[in-house]
This record gives sequence, structure tokens and C-alpha cells, in this order.
Amino acid sequence: MVNTVNVGIVGISGYSGGKALELLLNHPQVRVCYISANNTQGKIASIWPKLAGRTPLVCQRFDAQKAAKLCDLVFLAVPHTVSMKITPQLLSLGKRVIDLSGDYRLSNASQYAQWYGVPHEDVKNLAQAVYGLCELYREDIRRAKLIANPGCYPTAALLALAPLATSHASVIESIAIDAKSGVTGAGRKVKLELGFSEVNENFKAYKPLAHQHVPEMELYLSKVAGKNLSIDFVPHLLPINCGILETIYVRLHGKLTLNTVYKIYQRFYKKEPFVRILDSGEQPELKNVVNTNYCDIGFALSADSRLLVVTSAIDNLTKGAAGQAVQNMNIMCGFKEKEGLV
Amino acid sequence: MVNTVNVGIVGISGYSGGKALELLLNHPQVRVCYISANNTQGKIASIWPKLAGRTPLVCQRFDAQKAAKLCDLVFLAVPHTVSMKITPQLLSLGKRVIDLSGDYRLSNASQYAQWYGVPHEDVKNLAQAVYGLCELYREDIRRAKLIANPGCYPTAALLALAPLATSHASVIESIAIDAKSGVTGAGRKVKLELGFSEVNENFKAYKPLAHQHVPEMELYLSKVAGKNLSIDFVPHLLPINCGILETIYVRLHGKLTLNTVYKIYQRFYKKEPFVRILDSGEQPELKNVVNTNYCDIGFALSADSRLLVVTSAIDNLTKGAAGQAVQNMNIMCGFKEKEGLV
Amino acid sequence: MVNTVNVGIVGISGYSGGKALELLLNHPQVRVCYISANNTQGKIASIWPKLAGRTPLVCQRFDAQKAAKLCDLVFLAVPHTVSMKITPQLLSLGKRVIDLSGDYRLSNASQYAQWYGVPHEDVKNLAQAVYGLCELYREDIRRAKLIANPGCYPTAALLALAPLATSHASVIESIAIDAKSGVTGAGRKVKLELGFSEVNENFKAYKPLAHQHVPEMELYLSKVAGKNLSIDFVPHLLPINCGILETIYVRLHGKLTLNTVYKIYQRFYKKEPFVRILDSGEQPELKNVVNTNYCDIGFALSADSRLLVVTSAIDNLTKGAAGQAVQNMNIMCGFKEKEGLV
Amino acid sequence: MVNTVNVGIVGISGYSGGKALELLLNHPQVRVCYISANNTQGKIASIWPKLAGRTPLVCQRFDAQKAAKLCDLVFLAVPHTVSMKITPQLLSLGKRVIDLSGDYRLSNASQYAQWYGVPHEDVKNLAQAVYGLCELYREDIRRAKLIANPGCYPTAALLALAPLATSHASVIESIAIDAKSGVTGAGRKVKLELGFSEVNENFKAYKPLAHQHVPEMELYLSKVAGKNLSIDFVPHLLPINCGILETIYVRLHGKLTLNTVYKIYQRFYKKEPFVRILDSGEQPELKNVVNTNYCDIGFALSADSRLLVVTSAIDNLTKGAAGQAVQNMNIMCGFKEKEGLV
Repeated sequence: MVNTVNVGIVGISGYSGGKALELLLNHPQVRVCYISANNTQGKIASIWPKLAGRTPLVCQRFDAQKAAKLCDLVFLAVPHTVSMKITPQLLSLGKRVIDLSGDYRLSNASQYAQWYGVPHEDVKNLAQAVYGLCELYREDIRRAKLIANPGCYPTAALLALAPLATSHASVIESIAIDAKSGVTGAGRKVKLELGFSEVNENFKAYKPLAHQHVPEMELYLSKVAGKNLSIDFVPHLLPINCGILETIYVRLHGKLTLNTVYKIYQRFYKKEPFVRILDSGEQPELKNVVNTNYCDIGFALSADSRLLVVTSAIDNLTKGAAGQAVQNMNIMCGFKEKEGLV
Repeated sequence: MVNTVNVGIVGISGYSGGKALELLLNHPQVRVCYISANNTQGKIASIWPKLAGRTPLVCQRFDAQKAAKLCDLVFLAVPHTVSMKITPQLLSLGKRVIDLSGDYRLSNASQYAQWYGVPHEDVKNLAQAVYGLCELYREDIRRAKLIANPGCYPTAALLALAPLATSHASVIESIAIDAKSGVTGAGRKVKLELGFSEVNENFKAYKPLAHQHVPEMELYLSKVAGKNLSIDFVPHLLPINCGILETIYVRLHGKLTLNTVYKIYQRFYKKEPFVRILDSGEQPELKNVVNTNYCDIGFALSADSRLLVVTSAIDNLTKGAAGQAVQNMNIMCGFKEKEGLV
Repeated sequence: MVNTVNVGIVGISGYSGGKALELLLNHPQVRVCYISANNTQGKIASIWPKLAGRTPLVCQRFDAQKAAKLCDLVFLAVPHTVSMKITPQLLSLGKRVIDLSGDYRLSNASQYAQWYGVPHEDVKNLAQAVYGLCELYREDIRRAKLIANPGCYPTAALLALAPLATSHASVIESIAIDAKSGVTGAGRKVKLELGFSEVNENFKAYKPLAHQHVPEMELYLSKVAGKNLSIDFVPHLLPINCGILETIYVRLHGKLTLNTVYKIYQRFYKKEPFVRILDSGEQPELKNVVNTNYCDIGFALSADSRLLVVTSAIDNLTKGAAGQAVQNMNIMCGFKEKEGLV
Repeated sequence: MVNTVNVGIVGISGYSGGKALELLLNHPQVRVCYISANNTQGKIASIWPKLAGRTPLVCQRFDAQKAAKLCDLVFLAVPHTVSMKITPQLLSLGKRVIDLSGDYRLSNASQYAQWYGVPHEDVKNLAQAVYGLCELYREDIRRAKLIANPGCYPTAALLALAPLATSHASVIESIAIDAKSGVTGAGRKVKLELGFSEVNENFKAYKPLAHQHVPEMELYLSKVAGKNLSIDFVPHLLPINCGILETIYVRLHGKLTLNTVYKIYQRFYKKEPFVRILDSGEQPELKNVVNTNYCDIGFALSADSRLLVVTSAIDNLTKGAAGQAVQNMNIMCGFKEKEGLV
């Protein structure tokens, strides 16, 4: 007999919520029992015509009691600040929560206030949230009640840097991340600057050295390193729908060989189902990870061995959001980790 | 000594207005003296960073007196319904007007009300407006006070059909136009459905058989034909910035040879600076007309000679809007017709 | 116990073959036992880096004996003319074949010679091939040894026209199809005209009224109509990766109401898992079918009821090629028809 | 009376040569008298349909005598290694040459051999070539017989770094350039990896830390700095036609304020017609420079003032190739520097 779980998804009208719905409808051990969004209700065909005919569910305004009655586990794909209002209700009703927003990622409430511009309203649960980067926190995830699903940029950055930071933190002198993201990473907002004719055939940096994902990256990277590491981060907007590629410039105090680097990473990820260390000389390409839950990683080293360039690629909506959320669910429910994911 | 004209542009924050400004700043016989937009004011660098450093003009809220004081001729690139409020003011102050909106294209006020959903407020000037399709109405344009600059879809359609309708109206049995337009054709509106991630890698028909450009096409095509011709028109949204390609299916009562077709068109356009009849076997491509004022036209004929396929391509913002407006200005001012245009 | 099938795929280095491999690796009742391509051999990571880590299979030069030894059923995703050399070998070794090329779609060998430019070399098997349009030939497919998987354009056209042609052939006066396809439809060829900078931000018609898919469409449409119907077909190249949208202009002798049209289509497809008749007023969009096996269909009718516009959308690599091939396999093997497909 | 120059263009079938032709046909003081390409000959309409009707010139196989007879100045838009064969012929016939290839950019022949993989065949003229970065070498350009027109990546890099290196070389600790280029930057080659479906919706790094433009950047940057500076350079392929954006990470020994940085750059470029230092807080966007000869530059500084991020944007075919070549010609011929350029 196949084990199954009843899930709900809150915030299905956004790109992450829509992707979560798409993945979960196709998951053989999941029954999607509840879907919700506050600004859009009704038949799925009118919200995501792509999913017409795949579920009879009707999208409703969020009601915690109703969600709790129908579901064992709830995915929250709502904007930050909304999540910290909903999460305590669901937890107190005994439900497990996977939160795709930024609300529970920073363990420090004052740091949250600084970067997100509002005070944190659920400090109690902040303390017990588990950061859902599967490759680093699998055992904690298994037992978690509340998962803070990682941000898209931090997922690509931490997977690219964790092995080095774990074993060779002392050689790291500085880290600059040049990140490029497809447009769905900005959410499904109605803004002139996200209009087709503004973005198409265009490219630009935004929020240079000032993106709210920086403290999240620094927090978890410093944890694995066992020392404070800071990151200079410049994101850019790519004229494509999906995908993040980060080119990471790590200046080194001492020297490393490429051979050592490959060994460190291959060992670190050897049992991981969704991290691929590319062959020497190969570089990640977005088309190889889009619509998959994979993170592809490649390397280059300067002739003087003092600059290591790590490149990592993910799909921002899959491994960077909904796919990683499903992976977290698989771990929490004891399913095969790849179930329902490609 | 070079003859010059002082012009103003109202509505520079939209795509057509921005394109008009770009073209006119580069026109050797034009001095742009006044720029205006009602929702956006200030330095050009903040409205069109692309044009930074190319003009010291500041964009202001529209003021008819001010515009009239500074300019001989005013381009209106405002939404329909706005134009018919502004135009009478400028005309009464003795200024010439080139209106890029749909307000003066239909000679019949009740037809305007039917297709644009509001009554016409300037019926007096409607009667004296000249339809600015340069290839058909050059002499009238020369003397006009008010030009109704053609719509983008009608420009491509009329240039593709006028030669046939002029000499062979009797053989035309039916006309279906399958039109495809880049996204700037929809204007610079802030709508979810025009968002990058909604349009990119997508394609769809919209307003099938119900677009407001239909009566404009039928009116002027029937005029050149000397009989009523109706058009079935289905527009589509292309995931590109600029360009319109129309594939026109003309069913014929009698027979025509391709050779005859080429002769009709080559003769009709032989002195035209901006219409290119492609060589036999060649088909228009958008990349050959984008950022130019050209209209490229090609043909195919069915084996039984009963279906003629005419394809025409223009840049919707240039020949389909601002470029044609400049061409109209050149004619009105006695400049060389290609001046300032490519 | 789950029933499974051992399959091989020949021609995995092309887009259709690659897509077939991707779908079949994810199919719970399929074991991919053999992969082959004549111009590219080796590890899957070097051919489709996207599929790295998903199969240990090595791509080899085609060898019919080897394929037959390992597989029950073989997918051929090779160019036309190659397929008719391979197919007889596999059939004679007792294997079932699903051929994605054009080699077995036209029942008439001389028509094949006319449109494909070479004589047919396997006339014997041409006669027994079953046209794999699942919605029309499901029972024949169940028992077939050799499936001629439909072309991408004919799939969208036939699904859009079959219901009307089946019940109302007498009202059809003429049919013109304006088709638009993403670039993968042209195959994975190395040609300047398929280069990124040539296609991007471009759009054009090609082979107007002269595409080799015309006789295939006419053959099967005439069969369901019970009379000869001819089709005027103009394909265009869309600057996107995947998807076909066809806008079909059907001139009618008599009159039809939209209400009748919807009833005809809804009844015809009411049990079909992969055809969606959109709600009244809705039009298909490529983004709703790309990466799925669905065909979405919409309608518009002229005010005088004499022109019916049918629009249909599919993913050219999925429903238009590899997805439909998998659907055919599901029928042939007695699996659920949606197994392994979305 | 207007001063004019007779020019020839060799290599018009490539993207740079085609762009040069397009710009020069529109230049009021230029007569294009000779066009040539070795792999493609004939009417311009068959090579660049976009330029049909704009010149009666016929493209011929290159013949130095013929070119010299018709022209005062010749643009070479041929592949590297071809240019060093042609250039000496034209120079010896007394013609001025603007070479868009890499053949005369490195003053050191052995460095050329190392990075371009072949020995230099025209060492004599290498010594007298002037590097055509107008903003740095205007006076030398005025008198030059042979211009080595800068590479696209070096143009964006040097304009972004020259002011800092000129006045503050001592504070520069290290420089890493993360560059992103549109696909025309790769030339008009027929390769699978440049096919539309391979590049579209994709993004990747290539030749990380190993691009042949590195020595060119280091050479001229070190010259203005008066000391050796090395550059770590990682280029990426953007899925757009045109444009280069470079995000440059300059680690500083000492401290700089943003205010100082802006002053340095504004002073350095205050009389330059084609360099725009953006307002504080603004970042360059490709759409603002594509189809123009501008270079837009912006800045960000880390909180600890130890990392300066300089971003620069150009059109790779205009300021990065043909536009800069025309600017060089304007300087050489005593024309206004902006003539024929936007």
C-alpha cells in the first residue's frame, strides 16, 4: 500500500505557488486537497489555464480552519509578511508548514526587521524553523514542523560554496557573487519595469550590494564555515522566464588546485540526488536545469591559483522554490527524495 | 539655407511618442521645441534614459497655448479619446497636427462610437482630417491641417492590398488577414498579460474578428476599390518587441497569374521610397523592416490560382506609427520624403 | 505487479529523440534499454547534459540486431528516408516500431516520392502502417506493428478540423491554415538561417502553400470527411523554442452557430485525455500546452456566420512528436493512456 | 561645400561588416564605393535584405588594387589572420585602414601568437598601428594610417576602468570582470551551439579566465595606470542579439567614497560625446545603448568601501565594433565626431 499525504497550497496565483501546484498534482503520493489565494478565486482553468482538466479543486480565500481540516501539510507561497501571520495559526492546529517566503529564514528577528523593513510578528516560531536546504539539513528537516524553504539566490550560492566553506574556510579571502536570474524570480507582479517590452532584449544589474538575500547567504555559509564570511552580491535580470546562474569569485589566501576542488565537491555531494558536479572543463547552462530540481556546478581557477570561480545553475522556481519545497516534503514524509521530481 | 520646422510632441512617455521623439531629434530639418506627457514629467533621462544627453528639453504637462507658442506642427501620440480633446485647441490656434491616435481615422462619427465605445467629440474636424497613408493620399497630405496617421495594422494591410483592389477589385471574393504584432503594438500599459513571463515563449490570437482596426481597413480599402470590401481579421501577439507581419488570404473569383500580380504591384509602387516588392520566391521577414520605415511585400499563389497570399511586414512603431508620421511631416513641409528616415 | 516494456530509441541526438528519451526515462512502466544515434555516440552527459545522472546508457551507432535483442518496441526519431531503411529490419525481427519520421504517413508511394523528393523503399510496410493520431485511430493503434506517428503541423490541424469534417463536411467551402511553429520544429540542424541572431526578434512565412505536410493533412482530413478536402497551408517560424499554433480559416457554404460548433467539438472529444475545448471567448495560448501533451482548441465566428476560425495549439515536440509517440506506446501496451505524460 | 570621403568595406557579410555598411550608407559625408566579401558575392538584397534599395553596389571578392582605386579609406571587418594579409597591401597602396579584427591590437607579436594561436605575419605594421579607443587616443587616431579598432569586451572594460586606473592605480588590489554579451558578439558563424534553440532561454559562462581579449584589456589598462594590472575575466552568452554589460569587481587597498568616484569619472569624460556617467543610484541597461554608440557607466560601493562595482554597457556591434570604427573615421577625416552616429 502506498503511503500518501494530504496537502494544501496557499498562494497558488503566484509563480512559485503555481509551480508547487503543478508539481504536487503530478506527485504519486500526494493528494492536493486545498488551494487558496486571496486575490484570485475560482476554477483552476481561469487562474492557470495550463492546469485545466488536471484538478477539480476550486481556489478559495484562505481560511486556516478549513485548510487544517483538509490537510496534513501546508505549503505557503505567499509574500513575506503574510506568511508570518498564517504560519502560527496552522502550527497551532497541529499542521506541518513549508514556507516559501523569506519570513522564517533569518533566525534573528532584528536582522529580519533591518532587511525586510518590518518587525517580525512571530518570533516564537522563528526559533524552531528549520532551514530547508536539503543537502545541509536533511536530518533536521525530517523532524521539522516548520520549514523555511531557502531563497532562490541563496540556494544556488550555498550549494556552490558549502563544500569549500566546510573544509577550507581558512583559505577564503573574499567572495563576490555575480548572479543572473530569469524574470519569474521577481514574482508575478504587475509593474512597468517587468513588462515584456522593457525586459526583452535588455539586461541590467539591480540592487547591487543591497539585496535582501545577502544576510541569508551569509548566515548559513558562516554556519558551515564555522566563522563569519561576508558576501558581495550583485543580482541581474535575465530576459528569460526561468533559471539562475551565479558566477562566484572566491579570492584565496593560499593556493588550491583544481584537482583538490573537484575532490572536495565530488565527495561532499556524492550521495546527493540533485547536485551534479560537472566534468572538468564543462560549465553549467541554464537549459540543463530549467524544469528540473538539479543544481549544476562547474569551476575555473586562475593561472596563479588565487582566484577560484565557481558557477552554479538552478531553476529558480524548482530547486530555488517549489521543487525544493517538494523535496523537503518528501524528506518530512519519508518518501523517496526524488519522488515527483525530475 | 536649410528650411526647418519647429515641432512639439505630446505623449512622449508611450512607445509611439518616444519613437517620434527619437526620430525627430535626429532629423536635420527639425527642431523639437516642446515635449509633453500628462503622467510623467521631468528630464528626458528619467523618462527615456536611452535619450539622455540628446536634448535639454524637459517634459511638461500639456498646455495648448504653450505648445502653440513654441511650435508650427504638433505630433499627438496620446491615447484615443484624448486626442479629440486636444486637436481642436491646436487647430484653432493655427497649428498643424499629426495625430497618431485612432480619433480621426474613421470619417463616420457613429462608426467611431461603435468601435471605440465613446461618442466622437470633434465631429467638425473629423470631416477635414486627411488619412495619412502617404502612398495613397500624398497630395491631400501636402495641404492638410490635420493628419489622421494610420493604425499599424491598417498600414500593413492597405499597402498589401491597395494595388490589387485598385485594378482588380472585381476578382476579389473574400479577404482574411492573419496578423502578428510585436508587443509594443499594445502600447506601454502596465498589465499582467503584457508582463515578460506571460508573453515570452508564448503566442496567441486576441480579439479574433473583432479588432477596432477593421473598420479603418475596410473604409480605405473600399475607397480604392470603388466598392465595398469586407475583411476578416485575426491579430496575434508575437513575443518580440517590434514588427507586424500580415499574411493575407485573398480568395479570387477569377484567375490571376503570379506574373500579373508582380506587375501590378511593381507598377503601383515604382516611385515609392518606402515600399519594397520582394523578388519572386522571397518572403518578408520582420528583421528586415524593424527600425526602418519600409514595408516589404511578398506573394504566393495556389496551384489552382484561386488563392493569392500576400504577406507584408512593417515596424509597427516606425512605418506603423512614428515613422509614417515623420514621412507625413516631410510631405507637409516640402522636405525630401526620406529625410530623417531609414 | 506492474507491467513493463523494454524500449529503444534511435536518433536521440535530435530534438524529438531527445524529448522521447526524456519522457521515457520518467515513465514508470518503461525501461529504456537501448539508445542510438549515428552521428553522435557516447555518454548521455555529453549529448544531453540535461539528462546527466538519469541513465547509465551509452549512445551507440545503430545496429538492428542489438536493438532487437534488447527491446520489445523501438522508437525511430531519425530523418525521413533513414526510417524506411531501418523499419523493415526491426519489423522482420518481430519488433514493434513507432516511427516519428514522415516515411510511413502517406499511404501512396508515388505521393511520397512527389513531396519528399525520393522514391519510397519500403512499399510493403507502407500498406500496414497505422497513422498514430490517437484520437482518430485508437483501435487500429492497439493492434499495430508499425505506427506512423503524425507530423507536428498535421496533428494540430487534424485535431482542429476532424470534428467539423466528420459531421459537417458538406458545409466546408475552403480551408486556409495559417500555422506558426517554434524553432525546434525545424529539427536540430546547423544552418545559418536557424542561428540565434537570425531568428530572434524575427518572424517570417516559409514554404507558403508548398509544405510537405499538406498531403498528410489532406489525406486524413478527407478520410474523416468522406470526401476530398483541400487545404491551403502557410507555415511561419516563431522566435520561440517550442509550440505550434494554427489559426484555421474555414469558409462555410451554409451557416453554423457558435453554439453548434462547441457542441460538435465537446461531444467529439468528451472522453479524450489530451484535447481541451476552451470555454467560449477563450483562445489557446502556447504557454498552456508547451511541455504537455495537450491540444487546446478555440473558436470565433464571423458576424455573417460564413467564416469559422478554429485555433489549435500543441507542443510540437510533445503532442506533435515524442509525447504522441508515448501515447501511442501506452495504447499499444495496454497502459493507462496518460501514463508518463502530463 | 561638404567634405566627403570615399570608403570601402571588406567583409560585409558578417555582423560587424553589415553594421558598418548600414551606418556608412547613412553617413552624410561618406560615399561607400566598394564592398567586398570572399564567401558571398552579389546584390546587397541577397546578402542583407534589410539594406535592399539603399545602395546599387555589388559585393565582390576582395581585390586590393580595385579597392585602392575606388577608396580613400578601407574598413576591414574580416576574421583575425585575414586582416594581417590584406592590411599591408592597402597601406602600401597609400590607403588608410580601420581594422575591426584583433590582428593589430596587441603590440607584441609573440603575445599575439600565444593568444590567437598563429604567428603574426605583419610585424612591421603592428608597430605603427594606433589603438582606436577614441576616448584615450584621439590625437594619435587623427594622424593614424592604421587603426586597430578595439575589441568589444575591451571597449566596455577600458571605458569603465580607465578613469580609476589613471588617477588611482595605487588603490586597485584586484579586478574581476563578469561580462555578458549578446550573440552577435560571436560572429555570424554556423554552429550548433549558436542555434536558436540552443541559446534561447539559456545562459552560460564560456572560456572562463581564458578569453583572448584579456591581454588587450591588460595592455591598455596597464598603460593608462602606469603599472601592470591584471584582470580576471569571465564572459557569458546572453540570449539577446546585441549588447555587452560588464559588471566589474574592483577590490581596493585603500578607501574611496562614491562621491570621489563620481567626480573622477565625470571629470574624465566631461567632453566625451559617447560616454554617459549615470546619475547616482542608476544602473546601465542594455536597451539604452543598443543601436547607439554610447557607453553607459554606473557604480556601487560596498559598505566597508573596499569593493567598487563598476558596470558598463555598450552595443557590441556599434560602440564595440562598427560604430567606434565610424567614430575613428570621423576623427581621422576631421568630421564632427558624432556625424552619422547616434
